[in-house]
Amino acid sequence: MINFSINKAFFLQALNTTKRAISSKNAIPILSSIKIDVHATGITLTGSNGQISIENSIASNDENAGLLISETGSILLEANFFINIISSLPDISLDFKEIEHSQVLLTSGKSEITLKGKDVEQYPRLQEVATSNPLVFETKVLKTLIAETAFAASTQESRPILTGIHLVLTEHKNFKAVATDSHRMSQRKLVLENSGDNFDVVLPSRSLREFSAVFGDDIETVEVFLSGSQILFRSETISFYARMLEGAYPDTDRLLVSDFETEILFDTNNLRSAMERAHLISNATQNGTVKLEIVDGKVSAHVNSPEVGKVNEEIDTLETSGNDLTISFNPTYLIESLKALKSETVRIRFISPVRPFTLTPGDDGENFIQLITPVRTN
Amino acid sequence: MINFSINKAFFLQALNTTKRAISSKNAIPILSSIKIDVHATGITLTGSNGQISIENSIASNDENAGLLISETGSILLEANFFINIISSLPDISLDFKEIEHSQVLLTSGKSEITLKGKDVEQYPRLQEVATSNPLVFETKVLKTLIAETAFAASTQESRPILTGIHLVLTEHKNFKAVATDSHRMSQRKLVLENSGDNFDVVLPSRSLREFSAVFGDDIETVEVFLSGSQILFRSETISFYARMLEGAYPDTDRLLVSDFETEILFDTNNLRSAMERAHLISNATQNGTVKLEIVDGKVSAHVNSPEVGKVNEEIDTLETSGNDLTISFNPTYLIESLKALKSETVRIRFISPVRPFTLTPGDDGENFIQLITPVRTN
Repeated sequence: MINFSINKAFFLQALNTTKRAISSKNAIPILSSIKIDVHATGITLTGSNGQISIENSIASNDENAGLLISETGSILLEANFFINIISSLPDISLDFKEIEHSQVLLTSGKSEITLKGKDVEQYPRLQEVATSNPLVFETKVLKTLIAETAFAASTQESRPILTGIHLVLTEHKNFKAVATDSHRMSQRKLVLENSGDNFDVVLPSRSLREFSAVFGDDIETVEVFLSGSQILFRSETISFYARMLEGAYPDTDRLLVSDFETEILFDTNNLRSAMERAHLISNATQNGTVKLEIVDGKVSAHVNSPEVGKVNEEIDTLETSGNDLTISFNPTYLIESLKALKSETVRIRFISPVRPFTLTPGDDGENFIQLITPVRTN
Repeated sequence: MINFSINKAFFLQALNTTKRAISSKNAIPILSSIKIDVHATGITLTGSNGQISIENSIASNDENAGLLISETGSILLEANFFINIISSLPDISLDFKEIEHSQVLLTSGKSEITLKGKDVEQYPRLQEVATSNPLVFETKVLKTLIAETAFAASTQESRPILTGIHLVLTEHKNFKAVATDSHRMSQRKLVLENSGDNFDVVLPSRSLREFSAVFGDDIETVEVFLSGSQILFRSETISFYARMLEGAYPDTDRLLVSDFETEILFDTNNLRSAMERAHLISNATQNGTVKLEIVDGKVSAHVNSPEVGKVNEEIDTLETSGNDLTISFNPTYLIESLKALKSETVRIRFISPVRPFTLTPGDDGENFIQLITPVRTN
């Protein structure tokens, strides 16, 4: 019968991290619970939604936790409800005591709250991941490459594989992350400092976004393990499991060609705000597009939505070269693409009005490249 | 054909204030427009949802406006869309030019945006309010009394009059604001510095909440005018019109009695956080209540929701007097009541387990009094 006391703020933070894997509307009702395992050396909190699972450890020897364990055991508690209760407690610490089977008495200050829990046997067993040969990533690097690619993944389930990010390690060091929804694509490459076993997997972009939310900037590195259909990201206190997507990812390399006819260097913010204005007007029409005209090195943007109005705008450029061109596309894709691009300038290369165009950071080579498919008009 | 130039940020702020009266989902489609009247000495922006209307004036001689009017006229523009467009413009100022009937060309930096508007004749005529004999209020005082009462008004349309706040001026100086949803009541009294004509009106609490949002803290005083079924709050640049509710407001004075059996002074925050814990558990049961027990001067709170758990808590008091008592009520009413009460301490007076109890600020007399009806249990 569990019995421990703990610092309230510390406990709450660990609970809230774990809660990111828990949905109160899960099709499997028991997954709205948080699992609390109290063992001799600390507490493990577990949450899962079937796609991702988070285990969060609180060690007895972590001074900030103020953790004092008198008796061990395990219990399930309704996650949202339990966290709200903990957050409402009056004192800076709390006592957690199992008073009868699956029933908990919380004491804090003069407040005594009794909660009904559930038997831990009802919780599904999470798949295990073998933890040998970790690949070590800087957390910041992983979070950056997720931000650079996840937005380009599909949100529609019609081709499930496209809701994922394709992660590939070749030659033990060459890492590549790609996402595409078939209208646009984003690819980041990097060379790892530590080499590892080659892999080729697809992870749901939603799971990777959660990864970015769970691993704070205070966690410098994470170990990555792959086994079976699961990936595990692990820091000192957090284990984050995500299920891989099954199926073959399309060959995106063939989309990247090196010949182009027209090349322009823009100020990123300048182009982005012009596209945001264009989008306000194009958005009033279904499948509204913006038309970019390049004539004698001058670039202008044009939108015409007969019901609401039109935009005509000259866009400043930093460099232009190549042929004149007129091309139409959905400005949302360009806006999202520019948001993902952290550099002050962006290089856009066009082949023809009907071929995808590429975006690369003005200050970088080809390690981060994006591709947008134009819309054929008339 | 309208033609003016203006500072973008200044224009945007005036547009956003006016927009508070505009709903994009109004049953009368034309009310999703903002009306722009450009006259010789400035611009008037008008928005209305049928319940409230806002007129916002920008004077040519206001230096911050940077307003230069070349030609006058009036036009209607879709409010949300127009404001988004203005906010997206690249330069710090913009030119607004009517290029043909009900069609506007906005120029800012290198951006040219053409928008379709509507003929101003389509806009409904707003009721006029005679502006003689203003009652002058400090804005802060009005906003405080709205915050102290509006929450207690009903949100249900079954008795429309209870969705309002009852505002009464008697003896030219004695002002009273009351709201009740029949479960609780909140009443603020104050003696006006300037006397005015007596009145007795009911205004929708929702309109008064909008008043608080529209009149910023930089506006020191507002003039209040009543005429027909409308009230007008007016500052130098803003005229805010609200339609009154029709019908007789219930007599709430008879609810306030002066005899009581038990009186307790609490620390407001202390009581509020105990009630918030109680509410977390009581909320799990339909119509869940908290039971307050006063025994020998000690106060304790108890909730039992068989499905999820229970709370037992001793609540510290600052003073207690009178008889023992056990009373049950919906903790939400007490939480909202304590939120409205800005004083550090709260005095609660009980008559019996079945009679409403009153709350007054610990540091005030009876100028601000609230009343909560208990729930009969067993």
